[in-house]
Amino acid sequence: MRDFVFHNPTKIVFGEGKVEQIGEEIKNLGLKKVLFLYGRGSIKRNGVYDAVTESLKRNGIDWVEVSGVKPNPVLSKVHEAIETARKESVEGVLAVGGGSVIDSAKTIAAGFYYDGDIWDAFTGKHKVERSLPIFVVLTISATGSEMNGGAVITNEKTSQKYSFWSFTSYPKVSVIDPTIQFSLPREQTVYGGVDAIVHVLEYYFDGSKERILMDRIMESIVKTIMESVEILVDDPRNYVARSNLAWAATLALNGLTSTGSFGGDWSSHVIEHSLSALYDIPHGAGLAIITPAWMQYVMEEDRDKFSRFAREIFKKDKAEEGIEAFKNWLKSVGAPVSLKDAGIPEDDIEKIAQNAAMRAPFGKLKKLYKKDILEILSLAR
Amino acid sequence: MRDFVFHNPTKIVFGEGKVEQIGEEIKNLGLKKVLFLYGRGSIKRNGVYDAVTESLKRNGIDWVEVSGVKPNPVLSKVHEAIETARKESVEGVLAVGGGSVIDSAKTIAAGFYYDGDIWDAFTGKHKVERSLPIFVVLTISATGSEMNGGAVITNEKTSQKYSFWSFTSYPKVSVIDPTIQFSLPREQTVYGGVDAIVHVLEYYFDGSKERILMDRIMESIVKTIMESVEILVDDPRNYVARSNLAWAATLALNGLTSTGSFGGDWSSHVIEHSLSALYDIPHGAGLAIITPAWMQYVMEEDRDKFSRFAREIFKKDKAEEGIEAFKNWLKSVGAPVSLKDAGIPEDDIEKIAQNAAMRAPFGKLKKLYKKDILEILSLAR
Repeated sequence: MRDFVFHNPTKIVFGEGKVEQIGEEIKNLGLKKVLFLYGRGSIKRNGVYDAVTESLKRNGIDWVEVSGVKPNPVLSKVHEAIETARKESVEGVLAVGGGSVIDSAKTIAAGFYYDGDIWDAFTGKHKVERSLPIFVVLTISATGSEMNGGAVITNEKTSQKYSFWSFTSYPKVSVIDPTIQFSLPREQTVYGGVDAIVHVLEYYFDGSKERILMDRIMESIVKTIMESVEILVDDPRNYVARSNLAWAATLALNGLTSTGSFGGDWSSHVIEHSLSALYDIPHGAGLAIITPAWMQYVMEEDRDKFSRFAREIFKKDKAEEGIEAFKNWLKSVGAPVSLKDAGIPEDDIEKIAQNAAMRAPFGKLKKLYKKDILEILSLAR
Repeated sequence: MRDFVFHNPTKIVFGEGKVEQIGEEIKNLGLKKVLFLYGRGSIKRNGVYDAVTESLKRNGIDWVEVSGVKPNPVLSKVHEAIETARKESVEGVLAVGGGSVIDSAKTIAAGFYYDGDIWDAFTGKHKVERSLPIFVVLTISATGSEMNGGAVITNEKTSQKYSFWSFTSYPKVSVIDPTIQFSLPREQTVYGGVDAIVHVLEYYFDGSKERILMDRIMESIVKTIMESVEILVDDPRNYVARSNLAWAATLALNGLTSTGSFGGDWSSHVIEHSLSALYDIPHGAGLAIITPAWMQYVMEEDRDKFSRFAREIFKKDKAEEGIEAFKNWLKSVGAPVSLKDAGIPEDDIEKIAQNAAMRAPFGKLKKLYKKDILEILSLAR
């Protein structure tokens, strides 16, 4: 096991009806006015908007709204919101949404204190050491952003989907009410689950050894997400499945699964980010396409671990069978598993690889260069 | 799954040689002088004392020492240390030791700000809402106190071993260096492991349902602790086992295993506290005696869960076989499994039950009164 630091100060308030606590949580930290950030209006249809605003009013919290954050959130929206946040002198950012809204909120909270273009945080030019306090009401379990310090944003001018991390970006409080997710479209539940599974797999397959406890915990998380997703595609209002999926997705990327690792491989994520930057497909769909191909390509680097995955998750003997079973499982819950499934032409492979290669070399289990990315994309045709 | 709040702000610094960081961690929080609390001198023999004091000096942290904290730590030592802390105007408490030292540190840190007798926090008369900042260098993995807000102290005048919990009692930073534990006596490793296993079992067997993810994670922790202890009784310097045991013991009681539960049963702990208050036996030894008897006594309240335990941990079919296998495992690593094994006379059962019954009724899976305690002690003869 590798040395590690674990430090996660986010307070999680979990359960049905907990949205009404958000105003009190904000008040308890002494804030009087927040930027209220959300997406494209689903929270107005499912009652969450009303629950949030009533809670804010009851606790004397003033707010200014910025809405319209879209999946694969873009830098221009962040710029707009930073301007509003400054003009309105907000003291914090309240993100009501999924990873896109939360990641935008983190970027806004950091950008509020930075004189340059906050995109600098994503390119490594600026180190984020100060942010407005962030609060979250989670509406979809997927990215784990509700309990970590990371954010992913797309610069639509350059087609770069990049990330930054800061200890100041951990939300102060995140409310996770699994019942909010009862009304999610089937594919969003599936893609959220896939995203969370792949977060675990990034740490599971990064070449680190001797993580006896964490291997078991990671397998526990993956199995629970798979089972929960299987239930929810038929029975979206199943509370047991929603709540276990929600907590599993949060734990998948809150620092726990990283302990003792090499920090994760992240190749599947980097290559996927090129897909969603170029084609605006859901991140979870992109991961379902890329991850099995990556697994196939790198399997020989750690056959033992891939065999263990096959055995523990799918009761299969061989590494190859485990990857195949994973791919079949993805298909069975309705995820695309090839570029073709997502309507991406084979001829674009060069363009996608070119985009991903801007980040090359990357990967821990196997260091990938453009030629490797091309091979993986070819396996994902 | 039940609703929950998870909020654990402790920073864990984990790995070989990390003790030398403690001074910097204290300095980073702006402290200039701490009370340095430790036990009966093992840290002077294994190099930890020197590593700590060098780190403090290097970072310009002044300190005053209080030593002699003993296992099953007592209130009188806490009183003595509070007086020293006040006289010397310390700004924090540095605990270098195991659960006894850490729990004493938490009590001192809370008592520093309380005008009355800090024992009031243990009887419920005083609610702890302010503490000096606490820092930890862990020397034995067992209680999980390095990453939670709880403390257990014995009032030797009244033979009461009671606990309190406060959010202000979470250590700011805990250093866990598994190599410090290479020199632990075999029985301390075993009793530490038993304590951590039983922490998990308190949450596993508290009657809560639908914790699909957490059941798996709790089983992962128990299996890892058992395997690690088995290795360490023969090979105490095995880093893989030491490090996995250490992290497992911390996670056993840092709030994670509690999520979605009824808050734990805690009957085994309450009854054991009477044993160690009256006979000053190691807590882990007392738990090895009481827990299997408690399991046997309450099994029918949740036969399904005890069957699952048998199957998942010991590959046995029936609930009874699982409990028997657990008892055999405890024996196999050298733990006592009866009062007789610990030299406690059968005739004392009434006296022990009397002491525990001061806390009755207690227990979540089955509410226990004095007659139940007598039955459990009788099964543990």
